[in-house]
Amino acid sequence: MNKTIETLMNHRSIRTFKKESLSEKQIKTIVEAAQMASTSSFIQAYTIIGITDKEKKEQLAKLAGGQDYVAENGHFFLFCADLYRHSLIGEMEEADVISSIESTEKFMVTVIDASLAAQNAVIAAESMGLGICYIGGIRNELEEVNKVIDAPDYVVPLFGLAVGVPEQLSAIKPRMPFTTIYHENSYKHESNVVKKQLEEYDREISSYYEERTNGIRKDKWTEQMAKMLQRKSRMYMKEYIEGKKLNRR
Amino acid sequence: MNKTIETLMNHRSIRTFKKESLSEKQIKTIVEAAQMASTSSFIQAYTIIGITDKEKKEQLAKLAGGQDYVAENGHFFLFCADLYRHSLIGEMEEADVISSIESTEKFMVTVIDASLAAQNAVIAAESMGLGICYIGGIRNELEEVNKVIDAPDYVVPLFGLAVGVPEQLSAIKPRMPFTTIYHENSYKHESNVVKKQLEEYDREISSYYEERTNGIRKDKWTEQMAKMLQRKSRMYMKEYIEGKKLNRR
Repeated sequence: MNKTIETLMNHRSIRTFKKESLSEKQIKTIVEAAQMASTSSFIQAYTIIGITDKEKKEQLAKLAGGQDYVAENGHFFLFCADLYRHSLIGEMEEADVISSIESTEKFMVTVIDASLAAQNAVIAAESMGLGICYIGGIRNELEEVNKVIDAPDYVVPLFGLAVGVPEQLSAIKPRMPFTTIYHENSYKHESNVVKKQLEEYDREISSYYEERTNGIRKDKWTEQMAKMLQRKSRMYMKEYIEGKKLNRR
Repeated sequence: MNKTIETLMNHRSIRTFKKESLSEKQIKTIVEAAQMASTSSFIQAYTIIGITDKEKKEQLAKLAGGQDYVAENGHFFLFCADLYRHSLIGEMEEADVISSIESTEKFMVTVIDASLAAQNAVIAAESMGLGICYIGGIRNELEEVNKVIDAPDYVVPLFGLAVGVPEQLSAIKPRMPFTTIYHENSYKHESNVVKKQLEEYDREISSYYEERTNGIRKDKWTEQMAKMLQRKSRMYMKEYIEGKKLNRR
């Protein structure tokens, strides 16, 4: 196992950081590494906002559901899906680009582009000994988050990324079995087989919790997922994204 | 610059591979590295299909627009957004999960999840000296791609990933300037400023092509983007995804 794969396999989310800001150089390295990710047809459809203003960080922490580590970290990045620049290109090149930009296809492209970039940022940060935590919680109230950063149409904040020197290491949770997540040549969807796979995984997750909590917790993965998915959270999203002129047609 | 960041900064898409298949061990390492990426609320909402069947690879190459390297590579992965398993959890746990699963929010979650995993796969592969190329072209005809892999509702193939031993190295294209892609505290959207930034980037891209083609090509980035976005491609996507019971509400 080489150093890079070691870094990948050693990932865990970090939620407590030392009071130590990232240097300008670290920030630049992380952003430049992000930019080197593949991008669909060279479209580069994202923008990264670094939040350094203390008040803004606290606002975002509150909006994300009161997560302290959104305010307290070495640096906080917001990754945004972004086709705003491309809408201006329509004016610059006198081209009708709006139908494309407003399509679900291009919405997918911008979400994928931003995510590939973000994951490169993560790997760069972790390779420097820093820890990270993705903050999906900023999608709780995108209207408000948008006010904080003043993003125009065609721009949607997707997630935050808290980065810093780890204060506490959390544990690595066991992922789904290889044969559940990886299929050969066709999707193995026979529902009884899949359910059996999930039950097997449930036993693994359950004993993982049991061991780590001295028997206090032993929730199954399917239980966790059912609980999470029963909550109808962020159901405003479709309308919000369409209001931002993406995912419309 | 550490080894990992060197790998990230050295990325270029590879489109010609040596006739050398990935070993089982390499495939497993790549998939397991993918799985270690962050996942929203531990949802793990993706499936990876490895295509080894020669006929299927050729079909996919054709569907992707006749790209040879989809058929000829060391291994071909298809990354799929996947909430099918989660729909079964509804049955297993007697929970109403369908509204959630069909929401735009969860569609974003599954696209982000799959993309983070894919980028980890890419970094793992590249750290082993392999080359990669993302294949967005499989989205040309998802209905047909879906037939090849027989994916159920709630599963959407997002992109392919061709991996193999590089035969030819392509060049690294210069990304957007740091100050264009990275903003501090708020989004800098003043359109005249953005247009000037893009014109500056245009000059960089234009001379990049000019130097590399002895003056034959000198297209600007905005020109490339206008040309690409004018084509209304994959406009069936909204309906297709909704037909797969995602991004519906």
